[in-house]
Amino acid sequence: MRLISDPEELLRLFRRREISTREIEEKVEGILQEIRSGGDRALERLSREIEGIELDSIEVKPEEVEEGLREAGDFLPVLREAARRISDFHKRQREIFGLEGAKEVSEGIKLRIVPLRSVGIYAPRGARGYPSSVLMTAIPAREAGVEEIYLASPPGPDGRIPPSVLASAHIAGVKRIFKLGGALAAGAFAFGTETVPKVDKICGPGGLFFTAAKRKVFGEVGIDGLCGPTEALILADEEADPESCAADLLAQGEHAGALIGLITDSRSLAEEVQRELEARAPLLPGSREAVERGFILIVGDLREGARIADLLAPEHLSLYVRNPEELLDLIGSAGAIFLGEGSPEVLGDYIAGPSHVMPTGGAARFSSALGVWDFVKFIPVFEFEKAPRELLEAAEKLALLEDFRAHAEAARLRLRKEGR
Amino acid sequence: MRLISDPEELLRLFRRREISTREIEEKVEGILQEIRSGGDRALERLSREIEGIELDSIEVKPEEVEEGLREAGDFLPVLREAARRISDFHKRQREIFGLEGAKEVSEGIKLRIVPLRSVGIYAPRGARGYPSSVLMTAIPAREAGVEEIYLASPPGPDGRIPPSVLASAHIAGVKRIFKLGGALAAGAFAFGTETVPKVDKICGPGGLFFTAAKRKVFGEVGIDGLCGPTEALILADEEADPESCAADLLAQGEHAGALIGLITDSRSLAEEVQRELEARAPLLPGSREAVERGFILIVGDLREGARIADLLAPEHLSLYVRNPEELLDLIGSAGAIFLGEGSPEVLGDYIAGPSHVMPTGGAARFSSALGVWDFVKFIPVFEFEKAPRELLEAAEKLALLEDFRAHAEAARLRLRKEGR
Repeated sequence: MRLISDPEELLRLFRRREISTREIEEKVEGILQEIRSGGDRALERLSREIEGIELDSIEVKPEEVEEGLREAGDFLPVLREAARRISDFHKRQREIFGLEGAKEVSEGIKLRIVPLRSVGIYAPRGARGYPSSVLMTAIPAREAGVEEIYLASPPGPDGRIPPSVLASAHIAGVKRIFKLGGALAAGAFAFGTETVPKVDKICGPGGLFFTAAKRKVFGEVGIDGLCGPTEALILADEEADPESCAADLLAQGEHAGALIGLITDSRSLAEEVQRELEARAPLLPGSREAVERGFILIVGDLREGARIADLLAPEHLSLYVRNPEELLDLIGSAGAIFLGEGSPEVLGDYIAGPSHVMPTGGAARFSSALGVWDFVKFIPVFEFEKAPRELLEAAEKLALLEDFRAHAEAARLRLRKEGR
Repeated sequence: MRLISDPEELLRLFRRREISTREIEEKVEGILQEIRSGGDRALERLSREIEGIELDSIEVKPEEVEEGLREAGDFLPVLREAARRISDFHKRQREIFGLEGAKEVSEGIKLRIVPLRSVGIYAPRGARGYPSSVLMTAIPAREAGVEEIYLASPPGPDGRIPPSVLASAHIAGVKRIFKLGGALAAGAFAFGTETVPKVDKICGPGGLFFTAAKRKVFGEVGIDGLCGPTEALILADEEADPESCAADLLAQGEHAGALIGLITDSRSLAEEVQRELEARAPLLPGSREAVERGFILIVGDLREGARIADLLAPEHLSLYVRNPEELLDLIGSAGAIFLGEGSPEVLGDYIAGPSHVMPTGGAARFSSALGVWDFVKFIPVFEFEKAPRELLEAAEKLALLEDFRAHAEAARLRLRKEGR
């Protein structure tokens, strides 16, 4: 890891990396247009041309799912356990925030809370597929009450989706699964084809092409955000365990393009973490690049460190300090915060309950981990028995102030009708 | 209004109209790049070149606000009344949904609710400015706890922003006001310049250039949605008052590009509404175009009408039917719903409480009227005293399933350390 002394340099690292290029944009634009006009035939042709895959069928067949469940046999219990915990957490979320039914907010006005009808989720392929991402995206939607949840994921060269992914989709209640990767998945869900349903919202992390396509179809459908490479930042003091720090940095460092870093007020901790990383990295070659790109910043005190962490708005922030609660108020922006040795980030990645789909690239300044709130709408319902006179009069005045004569007349008409 | 018989034709009308063109996209891209690299100087030059306005200052000066308050004098009470009602409504929203503080969701995990730090709101110019839009955007943000709220609005040819807009910004608690229109406003808020602060989220309705720029800067900052032309749909039966129907359609018809329509099971009502529109339209020339483009669909029964309305997902939906509550469950998508004669839409436009910034172009399928939820983040905080053994073991298994060895090692390390 590189020793950095200028917090400004950090800000540049953590700022959203403009990951798309003109070439990607144009390719994606072309792909989307083809899907819009060509439907299934376009999906089949593009799968062949781009991925070199001859799809026997765009949709995964029931027998393939059954086969996947058999092959994933040994892992079914732990997938079910993860699903149960994620499900419980999001059920509680819905209860705590009251995200169902209708609420009387003021006299004559209630808010109806209505789940989205359909959601298309995406799981990138990776080495062996990401069953955890399927659970972490589909289950919050399911607990919000979304009835139609679909999955798209790119098949391997053998035309198959990994069994663990099929199994987790089955466990999460996904209704249909499509063998589509990147921009093809986003385009199919956005426009709909003969086989793939048009959805209300597209969610989940993906690579460059999927993300570029998501941005382009936003408006036509909803999207959860633009997910970039993962980030892990540790804020630690001299009492932190260097082994734990190194282990957590190496863990996030396994993801492609990951940004990992340490901020500390202790030079000796920094040195120990470096040593641990050097000792362990050779055993974990998947993290080597991230360690090389990673950074350490030594600060005068922890409050300064916390303020810098807040500005960076990292996806994951671990606080390995004596009194982490004291620093919490200084952190307004982070995807998730892990307090101390009892809460290693890996619990959040897989099993604790909250979705691991979290904002990256500074998006934690304005957005949150995926949750039930991403899958419901709040519809104001106006149900005055009789429009209050003072409101009609105020509306008329305001309409005239904006020179909207027909608005004013719509208010005036009601006053006239009631002889008011 | 045109009589339409095919619901499919309606769907095409209500589907998001691709309002941008390649020319707009390229212009906006250029403008954004100039602002990013040139800051204030670029804003001044672009104001001159695009709007023909020589800005004496990008920021509105305190004495201009004072002058605005004096000039808006007669209207201050009604602006304050509207502000009070919008404020009360959103305070209640925050309370009802518990959008503050921290909630223990499950053992060892709480959710902190944190307001966004800064929001840049936009108010287009229109004929005399839209003070109502300023209130309807800034106040939900303020009640969510956002401390830094800024406004951008294009100045007129005299280089001034309308007094009503300055006054409503002052009333809503806007901290600073900038004389910037369209893509200039979005670019300045997204990147920041010497004068204009970079914000966390850009909100509010605007024209083609502002909306195209909003889409492009999404990711760099948050945005509330892509607002298009307004829509008003009425579902009415034979007992509905044709005068009210016509008045409401004419009112929304005043907005540029508005889409207005009537669905009814009563041919006689359709005819009466047509007559009313023909009688009134000449007095309200601002609505003429919308009336010409508008439509009437006659359906076999009201439940069929409600199902069609749901598919259209209109911004505003008025139910002028005997038992509107009976149809409510059929409507899953609408920006807002107005039940019966006591709840004319104009109350929602100006004064009742909910924000009038609502999803258009089918976006009501996946998004909602602006609310407190748009201005807070939910941050999961993991605070286990000691990581539960069964969670560490499950995390390790899942990591191995995904071939993430360093993740597995991060879990295993904790088990080893505790001798577990």
